[in-house]
Amino acid sequence: MLTVEQAVQAKAIALGKLAVRATTAAKAGHPTTALSLTHLVTELLYRVMRWDPADPRAAGSDRLVLSEGHAVPILYAACADLGVTITPHGQARPMTQDDLMALRDIDSPVDGHPNPELGFPFFDAATGSLGQGLSVAAGLAAAARLDGIDKTIYCIIGDGESREGQIWEAMDFIADHELTNVVAIFNCNTLAQSDYVSPAQDWVHLQHKAQAFGWIALEIDGHDPAKIDDVLRNRTALAKGKPLCVVARTVKGWGVPDLAGMGHHGTPVKQEQLEAVLAALDRLGREFGVDGAPAEDIAQLLRITPPLEVPPAQVDVSTPASLGAVAQGNAKIASALRDKKMMSPRRAFGTALKMLGAANPQVVALDADVKNSTYAEDFAQAFPDRYFEARIAEQNMVSAAAGLASGGKIPFVSTFGRFLERAFDQIEMAIIGGANLKLVGTHVGVTLASDGPSQMGLADVAFMRTFAHVRDSHGNPAMTILTPSDAVSAYGLVLAMAETSGACYLRAVRSDLPVLYPEGENFPLRSHKVVRPALQGSAGRPLVFVAWGYLVHSCLKAAQMLEEDGVSAAVVDAYSLPADVPAILALAGDEGCIIAVEDNYVGGLGSELAETAATIEGAPPIYPLVVGRIPKSGRSADDVLHYVGLGVEDIVEAARHHMHVAG
Amino acid sequence: MLTVEQAVQAKAIALGKLAVRATTAAKAGHPTTALSLTHLVTELLYRVMRWDPADPRAAGSDRLVLSEGHAVPILYAACADLGVTITPHGQARPMTQDDLMALRDIDSPVDGHPNPELGFPFFDAATGSLGQGLSVAAGLAAAARLDGIDKTIYCIIGDGESREGQIWEAMDFIADHELTNVVAIFNCNTLAQSDYVSPAQDWVHLQHKAQAFGWIALEIDGHDPAKIDDVLRNRTALAKGKPLCVVARTVKGWGVPDLAGMGHHGTPVKQEQLEAVLAALDRLGREFGVDGAPAEDIAQLLRITPPLEVPPAQVDVSTPASLGAVAQGNAKIASALRDKKMMSPRRAFGTALKMLGAANPQVVALDADVKNSTYAEDFAQAFPDRYFEARIAEQNMVSAAAGLASGGKIPFVSTFGRFLERAFDQIEMAIIGGANLKLVGTHVGVTLASDGPSQMGLADVAFMRTFAHVRDSHGNPAMTILTPSDAVSAYGLVLAMAETSGACYLRAVRSDLPVLYPEGENFPLRSHKVVRPALQGSAGRPLVFVAWGYLVHSCLKAAQMLEEDGVSAAVVDAYSLPADVPAILALAGDEGCIIAVEDNYVGGLGSELAETAATIEGAPPIYPLVVGRIPKSGRSADDVLHYVGLGVEDIVEAARHHMHVAG
Repeated sequence: MLTVEQAVQAKAIALGKLAVRATTAAKAGHPTTALSLTHLVTELLYRVMRWDPADPRAAGSDRLVLSEGHAVPILYAACADLGVTITPHGQARPMTQDDLMALRDIDSPVDGHPNPELGFPFFDAATGSLGQGLSVAAGLAAAARLDGIDKTIYCIIGDGESREGQIWEAMDFIADHELTNVVAIFNCNTLAQSDYVSPAQDWVHLQHKAQAFGWIALEIDGHDPAKIDDVLRNRTALAKGKPLCVVARTVKGWGVPDLAGMGHHGTPVKQEQLEAVLAALDRLGREFGVDGAPAEDIAQLLRITPPLEVPPAQVDVSTPASLGAVAQGNAKIASALRDKKMMSPRRAFGTALKMLGAANPQVVALDADVKNSTYAEDFAQAFPDRYFEARIAEQNMVSAAAGLASGGKIPFVSTFGRFLERAFDQIEMAIIGGANLKLVGTHVGVTLASDGPSQMGLADVAFMRTFAHVRDSHGNPAMTILTPSDAVSAYGLVLAMAETSGACYLRAVRSDLPVLYPEGENFPLRSHKVVRPALQGSAGRPLVFVAWGYLVHSCLKAAQMLEEDGVSAAVVDAYSLPADVPAILALAGDEGCIIAVEDNYVGGLGSELAETAATIEGAPPIYPLVVGRIPKSGRSADDVLHYVGLGVEDIVEAARHHMHVAG
Repeated sequence: MLTVEQAVQAKAIALGKLAVRATTAAKAGHPTTALSLTHLVTELLYRVMRWDPADPRAAGSDRLVLSEGHAVPILYAACADLGVTITPHGQARPMTQDDLMALRDIDSPVDGHPNPELGFPFFDAATGSLGQGLSVAAGLAAAARLDGIDKTIYCIIGDGESREGQIWEAMDFIADHELTNVVAIFNCNTLAQSDYVSPAQDWVHLQHKAQAFGWIALEIDGHDPAKIDDVLRNRTALAKGKPLCVVARTVKGWGVPDLAGMGHHGTPVKQEQLEAVLAALDRLGREFGVDGAPAEDIAQLLRITPPLEVPPAQVDVSTPASLGAVAQGNAKIASALRDKKMMSPRRAFGTALKMLGAANPQVVALDADVKNSTYAEDFAQAFPDRYFEARIAEQNMVSAAAGLASGGKIPFVSTFGRFLERAFDQIEMAIIGGANLKLVGTHVGVTLASDGPSQMGLADVAFMRTFAHVRDSHGNPAMTILTPSDAVSAYGLVLAMAETSGACYLRAVRSDLPVLYPEGENFPLRSHKVVRPALQGSAGRPLVFVAWGYLVHSCLKAAQMLEEDGVSAAVVDAYSLPADVPAILALAGDEGCIIAVEDNYVGGLGSELAETAATIEGAPPIYPLVVGRIPKSGRSADDVLHYVGLGVEDIVEAARHHMHVAG
């Protein structure tokens, strides 16, 4: 009869062979990285983790985040072996070896890197852009703790990958929040893509670093089943109340001498070498005395522990749709808005977020040391257990939020819009993974004035909008951008964000703004408001200003000035992207023209209108006014608006110019 | 007579008072952070650094990078006191106290955060988005070492700021490359914006972390002039061959009890409290026995050491314009291209980069562990001293490149285009700072196929293009995007990048592509090539495909298929953004239409054309074909192109559809 250790060896070899075969079939992938994880993955999936292959997302399951996403073939091999449930095209069924061999095929959910949205619910998030997984694990751990579920979140990180600063942001975050239900496993195979890893990423330094970051760090042989088992099973005792980091020495291309050393990173084994490589692994099996061991003996020894039983009530997720209705009715807010004629959109965000927190226990918030500027502190004070101070580390904040979203929470992530740019990669990964992420960027646009361009969200719009016209796996826009022009619309749009499933981005200027809308006004997505209609029978060509945020007010002033000259101009508050562009174009009629006014660089509102208008014969012309030069500090919003050509007088002048062109 | 230490105290108090007054005048800024740096800045600028206020960018000057840019009023105070040369509107003159009191004014180069481009050459780079300065310092240090100049680069980092992962990427990079001419100073004032810093960022943990990252870390009292002087003057001996990190315990709001503790972060002293605050600092002066000390006595004791003398030849920077001409003539390249009909643009990039390296010793390269994929390894092998392996840490790589650029080098920064997204914030800061940055993103677009969306550059275009229409301080586009469609154009565009001053981004697909252009073809910026003219007298509406990169080839195939139906379509290779849009629109004539085809998300080529077309009455319609859904892995480029609606058949179908619409 086999020992357990032999059973693990046998399984590790079998999985390694499958991973090699799958990458050869795909003619792509990273078999050598996969081989370095054979024993760690076998121990985790077959011995240590409490989970159920038939229900990989069960609430009480331990989780595994593969931060080094390119190692995924070894996980796919295990999932195929275990018949884990996959849901290609929405149809649930057990994964087969045929599925495994379809790795990277266009019709397969077995993608090049982990991607739950394609129908692989084993994964909690998309990974593949390196250095993000530990933050996702932190978010999952935080969600589990909020739900009172004592599950463990394992995260496998490459040694080369640990060069990414975000890993160390996550190490700090996990230590800060005492998320001792996370276990970080560094896969120290010493080889990156183009070179050996730096000494700074060797196992000795990684251990020292982890200790300096407040973790317990234990070094083990990552191919020794007994050692892996020992450290993972005794993790609570070993960690002594700190988060545990396992620094595992492994071999890239384990078991196959021909695949050792440099030059075998993202290189599948060629078909003609496949048999030799598989034979090398079989030889190892003979050495371990497990060659030809009956599958039932191995299965007998490798019994997966089922997930914790979790009462449904413990993870009852209110539907997002219920949030707005509950929060809307709150009289306090209405009176706050009624009594205060000037209010900043960010302050209304804080108020709305706190209301949402009261309405739904699944709402959580994260902020990066600017909660007193974004007003996320309203939520933080009311619901300290559901607030996660992320400190000055935006990348970790966004990926942790993706983890929280995957754990069933509705995370609102706030900082200056400019600093969300630090996490654009993480935002894209969250979008790929289908995270229900609510991003809030304050202090956007040039009207921030005094602090200068390093603090102004100006490129945020172009980046976020590129996803607004990408369909996600449900056919919805992968991103919705919302720019309130007053406190009422800010409040309403925060509710709308909560009600919408999927990624949203609210852009809120710093300034106090006059209230434009009556209390309780609704702000449906993909729509806009005509805040000033055109007068009938006015002089010249019909003019429509289309703006958002602060500049709606500038356009209203410009329209007022033009009216004094007998020129009528309508003003549209285009608070939502994607916008209902045909309806906006129709406002200009057959003869009119549109001037799009925005306080950011090109690629936003004007582009949105122009892209559609350019496809329509007879569409009104769209004249853009954007921030066309790098701004600087100014002591007032007006100073900076003038500097970049967006002052009220610039808007009036543009209107007069374009009327003349038309005249 | 005063002691030196008293002179430092007197100066520190005087600078502190100036910084407080300036922020009060500006009604904005961070006086308390400034006060925490009084002694460190005084010691550095008046005692330790070798530099010349009249020529702050002298080649032999020590440098100071203020990573926590919001602390800048204390540096401005010192610069005003010293009459450092500023160059507002290009006119050099000494900075005055009036300049200081104009802090953050729209007409002033004394911006809210350090910004050399406004006429403040003391700074080497724009800072203000946190966590980037140490990487800039690393780049400056690398440049100095290449030039053989033994100068020291000091960098001041906030304790809260040290939460940013990029700081730790920089710590690794500096240790890896043994840049012992960098001195990192952590300003541990224990207070961030919204809270006390985490224990993870206290001075004890920062010291442990720095040591674990291979640095010598020394803790000092940051308000003790003797201690500061001692550690900075003896830095070489103390550091024992490692980079030196000074962990300085400081007091936020030093000297002013009313400004101690939380609640005083970005808050200037109100006018009515100003006298009391200044009086508190004066009281300290009396305590130190320096109140009323004659200015000449202080000046006598605080003598700045002049910069090292550097022979002009040592930093002779060839003009960028000479690069292309020198590199162009190389016969090897011509024959390589002649003999090889298929070549990937990235391989041509590697070849061109190596040629540039031979042509100009100022060309340097950085890559993030994918040099064997980007072909930056051609350069790395030929010029190992000028190649900086940045490992898997893109943020540090980009900011270090900005530092190298500021140090007179021409840095080429390569990785997958998707992974440059990790450094979008750093790219924006480099643009603000006017860095001559050459970015190269390979493996862009959906044709990467097999690796899936986590590896495909798809949002890169929208982000980079938002800067293509922003004017920099010289009135030029702040970014130029170049997308080659074959090896010849890739080679030519790399030369064009080198010849252009300012930020450029080359997008290179992974695939081998047929050669479209004859050897030696020139590729001027802001232009395009008609690679297939329309035939005269063909059926239907004139059709113009406008594409870039891989999709130029798809459009050529589509045009071929349409020709078989008797439909003539022209194909334009729009390799440059900003584009010459009017010229492209003119190709469609009065009756034609344009189909823009691109392998990225919306916000690129189609938007570029539509934005202009939408302003022109009678412009041809622009029909966009973009990546409209999140892609996935596929085993061939064709599979994924088809999946996202960009297959040749999709292009043909779009052409037929739009011809019918027109018909």
